[in-house]
Amino acid sequence: MDKLILLKHIESQIEVTDLVLSQIVSYFENETFGKKEILLPEGSNCNKLFFVSKGCLHLYFYDSLGNKKTTQFAIENWWLTDFLAFQKEGVSNFYIEAVENSEVLSISSMNLKQLLADFPQMEKYFRVIYEIAYGSALMRLKYIYSYSKEDIYFKFRDDFPDFIQRAPQYLIASFLGLTPEYLSEIKKKEVS
Amino acid sequence: MDKLILLKHIESQIEVTDLVLSQIVSYFENETFGKKEILLPEGSNCNKLFFVSKGCLHLYFYDSLGNKKTTQFAIENWWLTDFLAFQKEGVSNFYIEAVENSEVLSISSMNLKQLLADFPQMEKYFRVIYEIAYGSALMRLKYIYSYSKEDIYFKFRDDFPDFIQRAPQYLIASFLGLTPEYLSEIKKKEVS
Repeated sequence: MDKLILLKHIESQIEVTDLVLSQIVSYFENETFGKKEILLPEGSNCNKLFFVSKGCLHLYFYDSLGNKKTTQFAIENWWLTDFLAFQKEGVSNFYIEAVENSEVLSISSMNLKQLLADFPQMEKYFRVIYEIAYGSALMRLKYIYSYSKEDIYFKFRDDFPDFIQRAPQYLIASFLGLTPEYLSEIKKKEVS
Repeated sequence: MDKLILLKHIESQIEVTDLVLSQIVSYFENETFGKKEILLPEGSNCNKLFFVSKGCLHLYFYDSLGNKKTTQFAIENWWLTDFLAFQKEGVSNFYIEAVENSEVLSISSMNLKQLLADFPQMEKYFRVIYEIAYGSALMRLKYIYSYSKEDIYFKFRDDFPDFIQRAPQYLIASFLGLTPEYLSEIKKKEVS
Protein backbone atom coordinates (compact mmCIF):
# COMPACT_ATOMS: atom_id res chain seq x y z
CA MET A 1 0.00 0.00 0.00
CA ASP A 2 2.77 2.44 1.00
CA LYS A 3 4.70 1.69 -2.13
CA LEU A 4 1.68 2.58 -4.30
CA ILE A 5 1.85 6.14 -3.00
CA LEU A 6 5.46 6.43 -4.16
CA LEU A 7 4.69 4.88 -7.55
CA LYS A 8 1.81 7.29 -8.08
CA HIS A 9 4.10 10.17 -7.24
CA ILE A 10 6.76 8.97 -9.68
CA GLU A 11 4.08 8.56 -12.38
CA SER A 12 2.91 12.12 -11.76
CA GLN A 13 6.39 13.47 -12.56
CA ILE A 14 7.83 11.28 -15.32
CA GLU A 15 6.67 8.97 -18.09
CA VAL A 16 7.24 5.43 -16.92
CA THR A 17 5.76 2.02 -17.76
CA ASP A 18 3.93 -0.24 -15.28
CA LEU A 19 6.68 -2.82 -15.75
CA VAL A 20 9.38 -0.36 -14.71
CA LEU A 21 7.30 0.83 -11.75
CA SER A 22 6.90 -2.74 -10.55
CA GLN A 23 10.68 -3.19 -10.68
CA ILE A 24 11.49 0.12 -8.96
CA VAL A 25 9.65 -0.80 -5.76
CA SER A 26 12.11 -3.58 -4.93
CA TYR A 27 14.85 -0.99 -4.21
CA PHE A 28 12.84 0.45 -1.32
CA GLU A 29 12.07 -0.76 2.19
CA ASN A 30 8.87 -0.16 4.15
CA GLU A 31 9.52 1.24 7.60
CA THR A 32 7.18 2.51 10.31
CA PHE A 33 8.13 4.92 13.07
CA GLY A 34 6.23 5.90 16.20
CA LYS A 35 5.70 9.53 17.22
CA LYS A 36 9.03 11.06 18.36
CA GLU A 37 11.02 8.07 17.14
CA ILE A 38 14.44 9.02 15.69
CA LEU A 39 15.13 7.86 12.11
CA LEU A 40 18.60 9.40 11.88
CA PRO A 41 20.68 10.77 14.76
CA GLU A 42 23.02 13.74 14.21
CA GLY A 43 26.62 12.57 13.89
CA SER A 44 25.68 9.18 12.46
CA ASN A 45 26.51 8.03 8.97
CA CYS A 46 23.83 9.40 6.63
CA ASN A 47 23.17 6.63 4.10
CA LYS A 48 19.36 6.66 3.80
CA LEU A 49 16.87 8.79 1.94
CA PHE A 50 13.26 8.79 3.22
CA PHE A 51 9.96 9.17 1.34
CA VAL A 52 6.92 9.86 3.54
CA SER A 53 3.89 7.80 2.52
CA LYS A 54 1.94 8.63 5.68
CA GLY A 55 2.66 10.93 8.58
CA CYS A 56 5.21 13.68 9.10
CA LEU A 57 8.98 13.84 9.67
CA HIS A 58 11.24 16.74 10.53
CA LEU A 59 14.92 17.55 10.15
CA TYR A 60 16.34 19.42 13.16
CA PHE A 61 19.40 20.20 15.26
CA TYR A 62 20.09 21.56 18.74
CA ASP A 63 21.40 25.12 18.96
CA SER A 64 24.09 26.16 21.44
CA LEU A 65 21.41 26.78 24.11
CA GLY A 66 20.03 23.26 23.70
CA ASN A 67 16.89 24.34 21.83
CA LYS A 68 15.56 22.03 19.11
CA LYS A 69 15.49 23.89 15.77
CA THR A 70 13.48 22.49 12.86
CA THR A 71 15.10 23.14 9.48
CA GLN A 72 12.70 21.17 7.27
CA PHE A 73 9.40 19.28 7.48
CA ALA A 74 8.22 16.45 5.24
CA ILE A 75 4.62 15.22 4.89
CA GLU A 76 3.18 12.75 2.34
CA ASN A 77 5.02 12.68 -1.01
CA TRP A 78 8.05 14.55 0.34
CA TRP A 79 11.61 13.28 0.57
CA LEU A 80 13.86 13.93 3.53
CA THR A 81 17.45 13.36 4.59
CA ASP A 82 20.54 15.48 5.24
CA PHE A 83 21.03 15.83 1.48
CA LEU A 84 24.57 17.20 1.66
CA ALA A 85 25.73 14.37 3.95
CA PHE A 86 23.76 11.77 1.94
CA GLN A 87 25.42 12.77 -1.32
CA LYS A 88 28.90 12.54 0.20
CA GLU A 89 27.92 9.49 2.29
CA GLY A 90 29.17 11.54 5.23
CA VAL A 91 28.13 12.26 8.80
CA SER A 92 24.74 13.88 9.34
CA ASN A 93 24.54 17.46 10.59
CA PHE A 94 20.90 16.97 11.60
CA TYR A 95 18.51 14.62 13.37
CA ILE A 96 15.45 13.21 11.62
CA GLU A 97 12.46 12.36 13.85
CA ALA A 98 8.85 11.30 13.29
CA VAL A 99 6.53 14.15 14.34
CA GLU A 100 3.60 11.69 14.39
CA ASN A 101 3.24 7.95 13.70
CA SER A 102 4.64 7.65 10.19
CA GLU A 103 5.00 5.20 7.34
CA VAL A 104 8.10 5.70 5.31
CA LEU A 105 9.84 4.19 2.30
CA SER A 106 13.59 4.27 2.70
CA ILE A 107 16.33 3.70 0.17
CA SER A 108 20.02 3.26 1.01
CA SER A 109 22.62 5.29 -0.91
CA MET A 110 23.89 2.03 -2.41
CA ASN A 111 20.41 1.03 -3.61
CA LEU A 112 19.74 4.51 -4.96
CA LYS A 113 22.94 4.42 -7.02
CA GLN A 114 21.88 1.04 -8.38
CA LEU A 115 18.33 2.27 -9.07
CA LEU A 116 19.65 5.28 -11.01
CA ALA A 117 22.06 3.07 -12.97
CA ASP A 118 19.33 0.53 -13.80
CA PHE A 119 16.60 3.11 -14.50
CA PRO A 120 18.22 6.35 -15.68
CA GLN A 121 14.76 7.86 -16.20
CA MET A 122 14.65 8.21 -12.39
CA GLU A 123 17.34 10.92 -12.71
CA LYS A 124 14.63 13.17 -14.15
CA TYR A 125 12.30 12.39 -11.24
CA PHE A 126 14.91 13.39 -8.65
CA ARG A 127 16.06 16.38 -10.73
CA VAL A 128 12.51 17.77 -10.63
CA ILE A 129 12.11 16.98 -6.89
CA TYR A 130 15.37 18.73 -5.95
CA GLU A 131 14.75 21.66 -8.29
CA ILE A 132 11.44 22.39 -6.53
CA ALA A 133 12.95 21.78 -3.08
CA TYR A 134 15.88 24.13 -3.75
CA GLY A 135 13.63 26.82 -5.21
CA SER A 136 11.38 26.53 -2.15
CA ALA A 137 14.34 26.84 0.22
CA LEU A 138 15.34 30.13 -1.48
CA MET A 139 11.74 31.36 -1.17
CA ARG A 140 11.79 30.44 2.52
CA LEU A 141 14.95 32.52 2.98
CA LYS A 142 13.07 35.39 1.35
CA TYR A 143 10.24 34.96 3.90
CA ILE A 144 12.68 34.85 6.81
CA TYR A 145 14.51 37.99 5.64
CA SER A 146 11.48 39.98 4.53
CA TYR A 147 8.54 39.38 6.85
CA SER A 148 8.18 40.47 10.46
CA LYS A 149 7.96 37.64 13.00
CA GLU A 150 4.17 38.03 13.09
CA ASP A 151 3.69 38.21 9.33
CA ILE A 152 5.85 35.15 8.70
CA TYR A 153 3.43 33.02 10.73
CA PHE A 154 0.35 34.30 8.91
CA LYS A 155 2.06 33.94 5.53
CA PHE A 156 3.05 30.38 6.41
CA ARG A 157 -0.45 29.57 7.69
CA ASP A 158 -1.99 30.77 4.44
CA ASP A 159 0.54 28.96 2.23
CA PHE A 160 0.69 25.67 4.15
CA PRO A 161 -2.58 25.17 6.06
CA ASP A 162 -1.93 21.39 6.25
CA PHE A 163 1.20 21.85 8.34
CA ILE A 164 -0.53 24.24 10.73
CA GLN A 165 -3.29 21.67 11.28
CA ARG A 166 -1.08 18.73 12.11
CA ALA A 167 2.32 19.85 13.37
CA PRO A 168 2.75 20.63 17.07
CA GLN A 169 2.97 24.35 17.77
CA TYR A 170 6.52 24.20 19.17
CA LEU A 171 7.74 22.71 15.88
CA ILE A 172 6.04 25.36 13.77
CA ALA A 173 7.57 28.03 16.02
CA SER A 174 11.03 26.51 15.57
CA PHE A 175 10.60 26.16 11.79
CA LEU A 176 9.74 29.86 11.53
CA GLY A 177 12.54 31.00 13.84
CA LEU A 178 10.10 32.05 16.61
CA THR A 179 10.00 31.11 20.30
CA PRO A 180 7.00 28.93 21.29
CA GLU A 181 5.89 31.71 23.68
CA TYR A 182 5.93 34.29 20.90
CA LEU A 183 3.92 32.07 18.56
CA SER A 184 1.43 31.50 21.37
CA GLU A 185 0.97 35.28 21.66
CA ILE A 186 0.44 35.65 17.91
CA LYS A 187 -2.13 32.85 17.87
CA LYS A 188 -4.08 34.47 20.71
CA LYS A 189 -4.44 37.57 18.52
CA GLU A 190 -5.62 35.32 15.66
CA VAL A 191 -8.51 34.00 17.75
CA SER A 192 -9.56 37.30 19.31
CA MET B 1 36.31 30.01 -24.16
CA ASP B 2 33.34 30.50 -21.76
CA LYS B 3 31.67 27.40 -23.05
CA LEU B 4 34.77 25.31 -22.27
CA ILE B 5 34.31 26.09 -18.57
CA LEU B 6 30.77 24.69 -18.67
CA LEU B 7 31.84 21.60 -20.61
CA LYS B 8 34.62 20.91 -18.10
CA HIS B 9 32.11 21.21 -15.29
CA ILE B 10 29.68 18.82 -16.98
CA GLU B 11 32.55 16.36 -17.56
CA SER B 12 33.48 16.54 -13.88
CA GLN B 13 29.98 15.37 -12.88
CA ILE B 14 28.87 12.85 -15.51
CA GLU B 15 30.33 10.51 -18.09
CA VAL B 16 29.89 12.10 -21.47
CA THR B 17 31.62 11.81 -24.85
CA ASP B 18 33.39 14.69 -26.62
CA LEU B 19 30.85 14.42 -29.42
CA VAL B 20 27.94 14.94 -27.03
CA LEU B 21 29.75 17.83 -25.32
CA SER B 22 30.28 19.54 -28.68
CA GLN B 23 26.55 19.24 -29.38
CA ILE B 24 25.43 20.44 -25.94
CA VAL B 25 27.11 23.85 -26.31
CA SER B 26 24.77 24.91 -29.09
CA TYR B 27 21.84 25.12 -26.62
CA PHE B 28 23.57 27.92 -24.68
CA GLU B 29 24.18 31.58 -25.36
CA ASN B 30 27.21 33.62 -24.30
CA GLU B 31 26.26 36.80 -22.50
CA THR B 32 28.33 39.45 -20.75
CA PHE B 33 27.09 41.80 -18.06
CA GLY B 34 28.72 44.86 -16.56
CA LYS B 35 28.96 45.39 -12.80
CA LYS B 36 25.49 46.15 -11.34
CA GLU B 37 23.76 45.23 -14.60
CA ILE B 38 20.40 43.49 -14.09
CA LEU B 39 20.00 40.06 -15.75
CA LEU B 40 16.48 39.43 -14.47
CA PRO B 41 14.13 41.97 -12.86
CA GLU B 42 11.68 40.88 -10.15
CA GLY B 43 8.18 40.52 -11.58
CA SER B 44 9.40 39.62 -15.06
CA ASN B 45 8.87 36.28 -16.73
CA CYS B 46 11.61 33.94 -15.50
CA ASN B 47 12.59 31.87 -18.53
CA LYS B 48 16.40 31.76 -18.29
CA LEU B 49 18.88 29.76 -16.27
CA PHE B 50 22.38 31.24 -15.87
CA PHE B 51 25.76 29.51 -15.53
CA VAL B 52 28.61 31.76 -14.36
CA SER B 53 31.81 31.19 -16.34
CA LYS B 54 33.51 34.33 -14.98
CA GLY B 55 32.47 36.84 -12.35
CA CYS B 56 29.75 36.83 -9.74
CA LEU B 57 25.95 37.17 -9.73
CA HIS B 58 23.46 37.51 -6.90
CA LEU B 59 19.78 36.81 -6.40
CA TYR B 60 18.06 39.44 -4.24
CA PHE B 61 14.85 41.25 -3.38
CA TYR B 62 13.86 44.48 -1.62
CA ASP B 63 12.33 44.14 1.84
CA SER B 64 9.43 46.31 3.01
CA LEU B 65 11.89 49.00 4.14
CA GLY B 66 13.50 49.15 0.70
CA ASN B 67 16.69 47.33 1.73
CA LYS B 68 18.32 45.03 -0.83
CA LYS B 69 18.50 41.47 0.58
CA THR B 70 20.76 38.89 -1.07
CA THR B 71 19.33 35.37 -0.98
CA GLN B 72 21.98 33.60 -3.06
CA PHE B 73 25.35 34.23 -4.68
CA ALA B 74 26.84 32.47 -7.70
CA ILE B 75 30.52 32.49 -8.70
CA GLU B 76 32.25 30.39 -11.40
CA ASN B 77 30.64 26.98 -12.05
CA TRP B 78 27.43 27.89 -10.22
CA TRP B 79 23.95 28.08 -11.67
CA LEU B 80 21.48 30.81 -10.78
CA THR B 81 17.87 31.73 -11.45
CA ASP B 82 14.62 31.92 -9.46
CA PHE B 83 14.34 28.13 -9.63
CA LEU B 84 10.73 27.93 -8.50
CA ALA B 85 9.60 30.49 -11.07
CA PHE B 86 11.83 28.98 -13.77
CA GLN B 87 10.34 25.53 -13.32
CA LYS B 88 6.79 26.87 -13.57
CA GLU B 89 7.79 29.39 -16.25
CA GLY B 90 6.25 31.96 -13.93
CA VAL B 91 7.00 35.44 -12.67
CA SER B 92 10.27 35.95 -10.78
CA ASN B 93 10.18 36.72 -7.05
CA PHE B 94 13.76 37.98 -7.16
CA TYR B 95 16.16 40.18 -9.10
CA ILE B 96 19.41 38.83 -10.53
CA GLU B 97 22.27 41.31 -10.88
CA ALA B 98 25.98 41.10 -11.76
CA VAL B 99 28.07 41.88 -8.66
CA GLU B 100 31.12 42.43 -10.89
CA ASN B 101 31.74 42.28 -14.66
CA SER B 102 30.58 38.77 -15.50
CA GLU B 103 30.56 36.27 -18.33
CA VAL B 104 27.56 34.01 -18.32
CA LEU B 105 26.11 31.14 -20.31
CA SER B 106 22.34 31.31 -20.42
CA ILE B 107 19.80 28.74 -21.51
CA SER B 108 16.11 29.42 -22.07
CA SER B 109 13.53 27.10 -20.48
CA MET B 110 12.55 25.99 -24.00
CA ASN B 111 16.16 25.13 -24.90
CA LEU B 112 16.71 23.36 -21.60
CA LYS B 113 13.65 21.16 -22.19
CA GLN B 114 14.99 20.32 -25.62
CA LEU B 115 18.51 19.66 -24.26
CA LEU B 116 17.13 17.26 -21.63
CA ALA B 117 14.99 15.50 -24.24
CA ASP B 118 17.91 15.17 -26.69
CA PHE B 119 20.53 14.28 -24.04
CA PRO B 120 18.81 12.58 -21.09
CA GLN B 121 22.21 12.07 -19.43
CA MET B 122 22.04 15.79 -18.59
CA GLU B 123 19.22 14.95 -16.14
CA LYS B 124 21.89 13.38 -13.91
CA TYR B 125 24.07 16.49 -14.16
CA PHE B 126 21.25 18.77 -13.00
CA ARG B 127 20.05 16.24 -10.39
CA VAL B 128 23.50 16.36 -8.77
CA ILE B 129 23.72 20.19 -9.02
CA TYR B 130 20.30 20.69 -7.38
CA GLU B 131 20.90 18.01 -4.74
CA ILE B 132 24.05 19.85 -3.57
CA ALA B 133 22.36 23.25 -3.82
CA TYR B 134 19.33 22.10 -1.78
CA GLY B 135 21.51 20.42 0.84
CA SER B 136 23.59 23.61 1.10
CA ALA B 137 20.47 25.76 1.52
CA LEU B 138 19.40 23.57 4.48
CA MET B 139 22.90 23.91 5.99
CA ARG B 140 22.66 27.68 5.55
CA LEU B 141 19.36 27.69 7.45
CA LYS B 142 21.18 25.79 10.21
CA TYR B 143 23.85 28.52 10.31
CA ILE B 144 21.25 31.29 10.41
CA TYR B 145 19.32 29.60 13.23
CA SER B 146 22.29 28.43 15.27
CA TYR B 147 25.11 30.98 15.17
CA SER B 148 25.17 34.42 16.74
CA LYS B 149 25.39 37.32 14.30
CA GLU B 150 29.12 37.56 14.94
CA ASP B 151 29.84 33.83 14.67
CA ILE B 152 27.91 33.51 11.40
CA TYR B 153 30.33 35.94 9.73
CA PHE B 154 33.44 34.13 10.96
CA LYS B 155 31.99 30.74 10.04
CA PHE B 156 31.15 32.04 6.56
CA ARG B 157 34.59 33.64 6.16
CA ASP B 158 36.27 30.32 7.03
CA ASP B 159 34.00 28.23 4.77
CA PHE B 160 33.91 30.57 1.76
CA PRO B 161 37.08 32.72 1.74
CA ASP B 162 36.66 33.39 -2.02
CA PHE B 163 33.36 35.20 -1.49
CA ILE B 164 34.79 37.35 1.30
CA GLN B 165 37.66 38.41 -0.98
CA ARG B 166 35.56 39.48 -3.93
CA ALA B 167 32.03 40.39 -2.88
CA PRO B 168 31.33 43.92 -1.65
CA GLN B 169 30.84 44.10 2.11
CA TYR B 170 27.22 45.31 1.91
CA LEU B 171 26.30 42.17 -0.08
CA ILE B 172 27.98 39.83 2.38
CA ALA B 173 26.16 41.61 5.21
CA SER B 174 22.84 41.19 3.42
CA PHE B 175 23.51 37.52 2.62
CA LEU B 176 24.17 36.80 6.29
CA GLY B 177 21.18 38.79 7.53
CA LEU B 178 23.36 41.53 9.10
CA THR B 179 23.30 45.30 8.64
CA PRO B 180 26.36 46.74 6.82
CA GLU B 181 27.13 48.79 9.97
CA TYR B 182 27.12 45.68 12.15
CA LEU B 183 29.41 43.78 9.78
CA SER B 184 31.74 46.77 9.75
CA GLU B 185 31.96 46.59 13.56
CA ILE B 186 32.70 42.84 13.46
CA LYS B 187 35.43 43.33 10.86
CA LYS B 188 37.09 46.02 13.00
CA LYS B 189 37.43 43.45 15.78
CA GLU B 190 38.89 41.00 13.26
CA VAL B 191 41.74 43.39 12.42
CA SER B 192 42.51 44.55 15.96
